Amino acid sequence: MKREAIALLLAAFVSPAAAQAPAAFPDAAASDPVAMGWMIGSPPPPERMIRFEDGKFLQFPQIRWTFSHWRQLFPTIEVSRGAGPVSPLPRAERDDLDGVTFLPIGSSQPMTWKQSVAANYTDGVLVMHKGKIVYERYFGALRPEGQHIAHSVTKSFVGTLAAMLVAEGKLDRGALVIRYIPELKDSAFGDATVGQVLDMTTGLAYSEVYTDPKSAAWDFVRAVNMLPRPAGYSGPDTSFEYLKTLRKAGEHGAAFSYKSPNTEVVGWLVARAAGKPLEQVLSARFWGPLGMEGDAYMHVDTGGAAYAAGGLNLRLRDFARFCEMMRRGGAFNGRQIVPAAVVAEIARGGDKAKFEPAGYKTLPGWSYHDQWWVSHNAHGAYMARGVHGQACYVDPKAEMAIVRFASFPMAANANLDPTSLPAYQAVAEHLMAKPR
Amino acid sequence: MKREAIALLLAAFVSPAAAQAPAAFPDAAASDPVAMGWMIGSPPPPERMIRFEDGKFLQFPQIRWTFSHWRQLFPTIEVSRGAGPVSPLPRAERDDLDGVTFLPIGSSQPMTWKQSVAANYTDGVLVMHKGKIVYERYFGALRPEGQHIAHSVTKSFVGTLAAMLVAEGKLDRGALVIRYIPELKDSAFGDATVGQVLDMTTGLAYSEVYTDPKSAAWDFVRAVNMLPRPAGYSGPDTSFEYLKTLRKAGEHGAAFSYKSPNTEVVGWLVARAAGKPLEQVLSARFWGPLGMEGDAYMHVDTGGAAYAAGGLNLRLRDFARFCEMMRRGGAFNGRQIVPAAVVAEIARGGDKAKFEPAGYKTLPGWSYHDQWWVSHNAHGAYMARGVHGQACYVDPKAEMAIVRFASFPMAANANLDPTSLPAYQAVAEHLMAKPR
Repeated sequence: MKREAIALLLAAFVSPAAAQAPAAFPDAAASDPVAMGWMIGSPPPPERMIRFEDGKFLQFPQIRWTFSHWRQLFPTIEVSRGAGPVSPLPRAERDDLDGVTFLPIGSSQPMTWKQSVAANYTDGVLVMHKGKIVYERYFGALRPEGQHIAHSVTKSFVGTLAAMLVAEGKLDRGALVIRYIPELKDSAFGDATVGQVLDMTTGLAYSEVYTDPKSAAWDFVRAVNMLPRPAGYSGPDTSFEYLKTLRKAGEHGAAFSYKSPNTEVVGWLVARAAGKPLEQVLSARFWGPLGMEGDAYMHVDTGGAAYAAGGLNLRLRDFARFCEMMRRGGAFNGRQIVPAAVVAEIARGGDKAKFEPAGYKTLPGWSYHDQWWVSHNAHGAYMARGVHGQACYVDPKAEMAIVRFASFPMAANANLDPTSLPAYQAVAEHLMAKPR
Repeated sequence: MKREAIALLLAAFVSPAAAQAPAAFPDAAASDPVAMGWMIGSPPPPERMIRFEDGKFLQFPQIRWTFSHWRQLFPTIEVSRGAGPVSPLPRAERDDLDGVTFLPIGSSQPMTWKQSVAANYTDGVLVMHKGKIVYERYFGALRPEGQHIAHSVTKSFVGTLAAMLVAEGKLDRGALVIRYIPELKDSAFGDATVGQVLDMTTGLAYSEVYTDPKSAAWDFVRAVNMLPRPAGYSGPDTSFEYLKTLRKAGEHGAAFSYKSPNTEVVGWLVARAAGKPLEQVLSARFWGPLGMEGDAYMHVDTGGAAYAAGGLNLRLRDFARFCEMMRRGGAFNGRQIVPAAVVAEIARGGDKAKFEPAGYKTLPGWSYHDQWWVSHNAHGAYMARGVHGQACYVDPKAEMAIVRFASFPMAANANLDPTSLPAYQAVAEHLMAKPR
């Protein structure tokens, strides 16, 4: 297992990954997984096989295939759409978005929307405006009926569920986590509150020095069963076992620090408060009521627990249904899916003062709340963000929701934001200026 | 890995497994996987965990959980329902079926339908009559939106696809397999025809002495990635690699001999003739056009190939849509899904003289054709059959289709048939006598 492969994965858990210099990666066209022939053929040629055992599935350009085929490498669990009718997604497509221009962050060279889509190694992108699909494109190995891993976008689904349970009185933001999960009493979470794990302001001795083979983060990755375990492995067997081993560092509540184990705790809080496993809550609260087109699925550990911090795989249009529902204040498919007050609470955001020290250069003035990233910009935009460019971007003022799946070579949004955030804003302004 | 666990699995590939004496297995109620608490809890208690690594997932009573949760133990690939509307399944339920009585084969003690459902460790059963659901029940770990492994019922889906491609001229029954899969020229299939693998009349040196740890069948099971591989394993890496190693024994075309590798070849024939992987053909030909409620999925080997001989997992109602489509001569959801002539060809059956020597005591006068089991009884019934009791039973005369998922302790239909086949016949006669 090469170290760089691990690095790509672990970067998912790093807080503000420093913007790396653009490396000499082949571009989107040159790394197209279909053109390259990964796992194509009956059977595929040996040199184009992607398998769990050798760990190369997380290397670039293999990830351009892997992220659209996660279930072929891992055990998974279903997030069922139920048996109801598919909800309609009206369509009013327009080609003019491709030509919308913007200035990437830190650049004086204008770029078009179409160029940004390629620059970001987009696998699928869908723009909704005033409730209609105005733009929908698929690239690489993703098809409309296929599922793409959402990575940390998963967190926002889970955080929204938790916020709903808070609104229902089944979870209390001010209560200690151990009121619901007493097994964590001797861990770092022993004196953390529900609100602190939801907003990631816990103080965790969670080492993420992923150039260090002895980093604790390796245990987490192996515990959730995302990497082959060496012979004689004696580390934590499941994510839950891993959480119990985490120790405290610093004070809870002092500052935002993006660490995925928090979301694993949120996942357990949701399961305990709802009285059923996370994937069933996602099904009952979102996949059924939203009238999703297809079933989704989640990565599971060996105990059968869905990986709340990054394990959701779903269709692009179903992702759009969720994101558009948030844009509409929680209403979709003829019903109130999420209480309007919960959506408003998420959009209101968290404590900017606690976010600022984390040093996200591309996110000045932002905050983090209930597992969502909130811009506090003039449009009131907020986001779900995954580490290789997955995004749900809600722009309430422009009545716009954008969802994107991507397989960017480097695992850090700091590399994607310069050609993404201003592009979203430019499209929003364009749609507002030229509605149809 | 205990030998008995392997035995349960391998029996799937044995031809007429001798009817075993009823063993001292706990009954359906006592082995209920929900009541037993398998994989329930957040997290489940260690003694109620089911995991791939220790191989116990194939032991009874664990299989009562495993067969409804295959994807939690294995990599899988999606069979997409597409994005279309869900087709309606009209409902006219009636409770009188529970009291229908019949004589089990070899018994003078009458049994009711309801008793038979429990006796067979049924996980889900659905009866359609004249196009409507008249009976639908779920037990154990299966829910309406859940998927159950179909085991060898998969073969009939794959065989039907092949028969459709024959009808379209894309496959020729009389042609050699190697016309489509030249890589098999040095294997047992080098001089076998398409028709012979479809009807399982090939002569294969396929040892299935599963009490012998050196049996060749072990290689097949490991090649399709269904059992943990020992350290230093150097056997075939994929199903396709395994097929190349098979040698001939006897003459092709002489007699029916139920051997799963034949279906793996049929799967490749379908993929080659259709120009895309098997799971995509299933999606395009069945899951989309039938308006399935949910996505299905298949077990895959490390090369990403769907396990054609037994890897399909699907919802009970979607199974009913398929089975009912066959009952209606290929028409469903307002269209002709399978040509009527193909359905008629399947229902016509194979060569009874070639079937009889195989010695299936519970199937006198039956035949095997295009991966279906044909009764040649007065109702013209034919079946798809899976090794732990999974079944699609088509009774054209009674306008009835029954689908069943089960997790019977012993892996052989000879144990299930006595309380299944006469039960199906009795229900058919009851529905004909008392239509509503």
